[in-house]
Amino acid sequence: MGQYQDELKKIGPPSAELRAHIPEVYDGFATTHRAVYKDGALSAATKELMAVAIAISEGCRGCIASHVRGAVRHGATEEQMAETVGVAIQLGGGPASVYGPEAWEAFKEFKERYG
Amino acid sequence: MGQYQDELKKIGPPSAELRAHIPEVYDGFATTHRAVYKDGALSAATKELMAVAIAISEGCRGCIASHVRGAVRHGATEEQMAETVGVAIQLGGGPASVYGPEAWEAFKEFKERYG
Amino acid sequence: MGQYQDELKKIGPPSAELRAHIPEVYDGFATTHRAVYKDGALSAATKELMAVAIAISEGCRGCIASHVRGAVRHGATEEQMAETVGVAIQLGGGPASVYGPEAWEAFKEFKERYG
Amino acid sequence: MGQYQDELKKIGPPSAELRAHIPEVYDGFATTHRAVYKDGALSAATKELMAVAIAISEGCRGCIASHVRGAVRHGATEEQMAETVGVAIQLGGGPASVYGPEAWEAFKEFKERYG
Amino acid sequence: MGQYQDELKKIGPPSAELRAHIPEVYDGFATTHRAVYKDGALSAATKELMAVAIAISEGCRGCIASHVRGAVRHGATEEQMAETVGVAIQLGGGPASVYGPEAWEAFKEFKERYG
Amino acid sequence: MGQYQDELKKIGPPSAELRAHIPEVYDGFATTHRAVYKDGALSAATKELMAVAIAISEGCRGCIASHVRGAVRHGATEEQMAETVGVAIQLGGGPASVYGPEAWEAFKEFKERYG
Repeated sequence: MGQYQDELKKIGPPSAELRAHIPEVYDGFATTHRAVYKDGALSAATKELMAVAIAISEGCRGCIASHVRGAVRHGATEEQMAETVGVAIQLGGGPASVYGPEAWEAFKEFKERYG
Repeated sequence: MGQYQDELKKIGPPSAELRAHIPEVYDGFATTHRAVYKDGALSAATKELMAVAIAISEGCRGCIASHVRGAVRHGATEEQMAETVGVAIQLGGGPASVYGPEAWEAFKEFKERYG
Repeated sequence: MGQYQDELKKIGPPSAELRAHIPEVYDGFATTHRAVYKDGALSAATKELMAVAIAISEGCRGCIASHVRGAVRHGATEEQMAETVGVAIQLGGGPASVYGPEAWEAFKEFKERYG
Repeated sequence: MGQYQDELKKIGPPSAELRAHIPEVYDGFATTHRAVYKDGALSAATKELMAVAIAISEGCRGCIASHVRGAVRHGATEEQMAETVGVAIQLGGGPASVYGPEAWEAFKEFKERYG
Repeated sequence: MGQYQDELKKIGPPSAELRAHIPEVYDGFATTHRAVYKDGALSAATKELMAVAIAISEGCRGCIASHVRGAVRHGATEEQMAETVGVAIQLGGGPASVYGPEAWEAFKEFKERYG
Repeated sequence: MGQYQDELKKIGPPSAELRAHIPEVYDGFATTHRAVYKDGALSAATKELMAVAIAISEGCRGCIASHVRGAVRHGATEEQMAETVGVAIQLGGGPASVYGPEAWEAFKEFKERYG
């Protein structure tokens, strides 16, 4: 298992505990999540990549891991991933040139696992 | 002229003055910009919408105006714009529910002008 | 009507239009919202103030307006509002010393309207 | 010792060295800190939790560790901690669903140590 | 009076009111502020410009106004201001290309007033 | 080798792979980078420290590593580094009191290597 899969695995148990305490908060969050990442006017893969672009500008590793996995599962290609990092660099500058390569590593890791 | 067009118009003159002082900085920035927002593995419209999604999470009005205009010019549809806000809300929470509607207003304004 | 009420009023119509396009996204968001801002182990007023503190550190005026209104409606006092700004300044530094006073103005405006 | 205690321990020595170089900067910072986190119109525990909520939205692990410890020392309960994460998720979306569980892990760790 | 002076003027009264409620919080903040912006290993002008660079990446207009004024009062030149925007653009990408020009406008405004 | 050098080393290979996919994006980014960090109205060392100040407020470790290295290579002194952290704390509050000490550790590490 690679480090981005670990990142996601680590979030699982405390999220489950929190959800037991604040179930409706998580229910609403899950409803939004499900509604967003399905094919529509934009494909699910495109929207997962869009989420990766935001995650890179936020510098959030767990978010990068989660949405890169989503993008891979929906069939995003290497070229699409690279161009997503391009958008993030145009808008995010220096930090995106640091977190973009992390998204790239995550992509390769999840591609090997799910691709 | 609407308020988001004004927003962009206001940035023009000081940007030109700055560019005269630091031309290479702006040249590099323009090179990146040109390279990103053209059709590739992802369409130009998709990448402009991706930029809008980041702009919403950054809460940057000028960026919203600039990239919504780009998305409209490349033919993004109302449905695609709405789903982009959806991604931004999933990742950005409260602030995205404030800046997302701004992107929506900007979309209508630019659609009337360029659509 | 004051400027923070205007801020909220402006977000209303485009939010309604967006909601018509992406209803489930907004449903989930509304579920989370309702679940959070009710009395529990922390009072609704405390949680609205907590949201104000985050809104100040995000520099999001619409969020400040929305959650200051919520805090006022749930009976938050002037002293509590001031101490909330204190927390935001400790964690947020310079920008919080700019957006904190905005929250203060919003508090006075909503207090006059709802207090 | 757990990982969040380690996080705080690691910051200690370089902070002391920096303080020797810029003592007044740190004095001011310490004055503000002391003034904020004591009982007032809001309890010290509430204000530490408020700081945790901001720290989650900033995605700052060291800040999460520091203020979760403060909250535990002032007697914050598990339910209050969970509701704090709820506020952070409502305002912070995706990243808060990643850093919120970190705050939860930190809470359990400090509770075992100080609770 | 120009718009950036207005921006600062607007923050004055609510800050004074807040300070009356949480005096020690503001005392600490003022101590840090005084300690930072004086000549040392880096000149006061350099440190105000550094603060402008951060303010641009935070997208905080009030902070831009405050620190551009400080930079002008300490004798920062137009060339130095332009190069500061350059650093902000390298690190901050798109949003810095929006807020950088605001800092430039503020510089001209304060230069006319204090220069 | 120390941890901040490792941080930079880790970014190298995925950045090279990404650059092969989106060469013009990286070319533009490199042009801006070169244009910014050379002596001008502000010295290269000052601009690298300015970048460190932004990196601290963004909480971006890779950026801290990269620009602290740049500052050390251009001869920045310990006192200048400490005062840079001071500016970051004044503007960035709590998170800067966490990431500032990281910049300090990075400074010592690179000083030993390049100083």
